[in-house]
Formats: sequence, C-alpha cells, structure tokens
Amino acid sequence: MAGTETLTAERILEATEEVLRRYGPAKATVVDVARVLGVSHGSVYRHFRTKAALREAVTERWLSGTLAHLLPYVEGAAPADARLREWLAALFRFKRSKAGGDPELMATFQVLISENSAVVDRHEQHLVDQIARILADGHRDGVFAAPEPDLATTARAVFHATDRFHNPAHRAEWSAPDAEAAFDAVVALVLSGLRP
Amino acid sequence: MAGTETLTAERILEATEEVLRRYGPAKATVVDVARVLGVSHGSVYRHFRTKAALREAVTERWLSGTLAHLLPYVEGAAPADARLREWLAALFRFKRSKAGGDPELMATFQVLISENSAVVDRHEQHLVDQIARILADGHRDGVFAAPEPDLATTARAVFHATDRFHNPAHRAEWSAPDAEAAFDAVVALVLSGLRP
Repeated sequence: MAGTETLTAERILEATEEVLRRYGPAKATVVDVARVLGVSHGSVYRHFRTKAALREAVTERWLSGTLAHLLPYVEGAAPADARLREWLAALFRFKRSKAGGDPELMATFQVLISENSAVVDRHEQHLVDQIARILADGHRDGVFAAPEPDLATTARAVFHATDRFHNPAHRAEWSAPDAEAAFDAVVALVLSGLRP
Repeated sequence: MAGTETLTAERILEATEEVLRRYGPAKATVVDVARVLGVSHGSVYRHFRTKAALREAVTERWLSGTLAHLLPYVEGAAPADARLREWLAALFRFKRSKAGGDPELMATFQVLISENSAVVDRHEQHLVDQIARILADGHRDGVFAAPEPDLATTARAVFHATDRFHNPAHRAEWSAPDAEAAFDAVVALVLSGLRP
C-alpha cells in the first residue's frame, strides 16, 4: 500500500531514518529502505544514486532541523543581545533534548556525521551565518561593538566559545546539575565581549 | 639491579606509566609494574593499596604536569590580560603537543581519565583556580572588570569558553589549519568580555 503513494525524496529520507534507527548505521541497507517503502531498490536509486548519497542526504536533513528551529531568533524583533542569548539557549535545549530523548538515534547520527564531514562543515557554516545576522543587527542598533577583525570571524568565535553547549562531543556534560549555570556564565561572558 | 634503589612512590608511578604505554590500560597489571621495577608486587602494594589507587595516582601525576607547566603565567609580572592570553596559549600548545606527540599514551590516559572522574574534577578545579588568580590580579590592577557574579564563576566561564582548545574531546580539531586563528578569535572575545 505504501508503494501507491508518490515516492518522493522526502519519503525516502524518512524511511531511511527509520531503517537506521531500527538496524543501526552499520547494518542498514538500501534494500531495507526499499522494503519499508514497498518499492524496488531501483526506485530508491532513481532519487539517490548511491548508498553514500542517501546517507549524506539523511544527515543533512537531520542537521537542517536545527537551523529551522533557530530561525525565529534570527528574524525576531527583540534586541540583538536578547536574541543571541535566546538563540544559544534554544540550540543548547534542542541538542540536549535530542541527545537525552533518543540517545540511540543520536549515536547513529554521530556515526553518519563522522562519515560526512563536508555536510557538517556546511551545517556549521549555516549556524555561524545565523549568528552573524544577529551580530550585524546588534552592531547596526548599537547593542554590539563593530566586529573585530570582521563579522564572520566574530560569529565563529561566538560559536566556538559556546561549543560546550552544542557540540555533541560534550553531550555527557549536558545533564550535569550545574550545566544551566555554566551556560549562563559563558553566555554572559560572550555577550559582555560583544558590547561596545 | 633496579631493585637495589629505594622504591619510592614516584618510581612506581614512572614504571606504571611505562607499563601502561607498553601493554595498554586494559592489560597492564600490578605484576607487570613490579617486574619492570625488579621488586615483588607486595612492595608495590605497600605504596598503593589497590590497583585502582595506583591507576588514580598515575592519572593525577599525568594531569599535574599541566599545572606545573602553567604556573609561571600565574605568578609572572606581566599585565594580567597578557598573562591570561599566554596561560591559555600555553595550555593549548601543551595539550596539542601531548595529543600529537604520543597519541597512544594520550588514548591510554583518556581511558584512565574516564575511570577517575573525581581526579579530573579536582584537576579542573586547580586549573580554574589558576585562572581565578590571574583574574584577581587583573581586577586589582584595573585591567579587568569586577567579576560578575563572582570570581569563581567567571574563572570557570573562561575555562569553559575555551574548552575547544584544551578539552581532549576536541583533539581531532587541534591540527586543523585554522586552529590558531580560531583560538585567537575566541581569546580576543573572552578578553574583551573581561575588560572594565
């Protein structure tokens, strides 16, 4: 019955995530994905030419959920310093809920992420671009100093200085009782560093 | 011949590090340590009552090398902001050279570190205390603002904001071509955040 619906790339990616969750990243195959969808594996290959391309696309889709989740803080009307704090807090909460809510899927995607460093680099650049937009607003409105040496470098420094609260390498620390207080202290230091 | 020298705790710890390097953390035993020293394993147990106590002590010894290495920047006469920058740079270089120079020993100590979280917590607190001493000097001399909400919190925030450049979870990134530039940008942001 599943086969009677139009086979879109999005449906294939949903099924791939399901298969990865079920069998783990080492065992999941394109044949498994086709079986879940009730189609031939040739139909899947018409959308994604290789297994690697499919794994890359599902990684990109998973990561892009974060960007969509954070966009309201980039485009909001609140002062830029409040928006940057909220953006960082939303990123921390989002990553923490992913890590805590479904640790197996998180571990699966850690494997996929390690295979697809170019996808991750692009994703990090998108996140840094979101920070840069908030910093540019803040500079325009006099909330933040002129970025030194430039906007891109400062935005990346903000991203790196808060690594502890979004980089999955630190996920074991996110459930520590003092994690929130540690986050507040780092964000206060970063915001202070951005002020005129 | 080795057995004719006085058996000190320090000699046992040196031999333990050697045995860990040779056999790996899973296989190294107290008997191996005793054999390297040319003594009975009972002699080792007179200094360290359990294998766990020996492993904890060797972990602490390894970590304390970092503290000794950084102390000159705490006690120096240069302005506090320059000392903090140098302290952070020295920590980054020291960790990077350990990770790059002897990756197997680094991996061994990552295992020991994961077994001895209380030792690591104490070690991190000592590092944060060194930062706090530099911040206190800086506040006294008007180089840094009064710490908000307090010295201990601000010192820990500096430590966390620079996690990317000393936490071994990030060691794969330390050899990236832009690692130095990324370090400079984060330190500039942190120092800006500390200024009056």
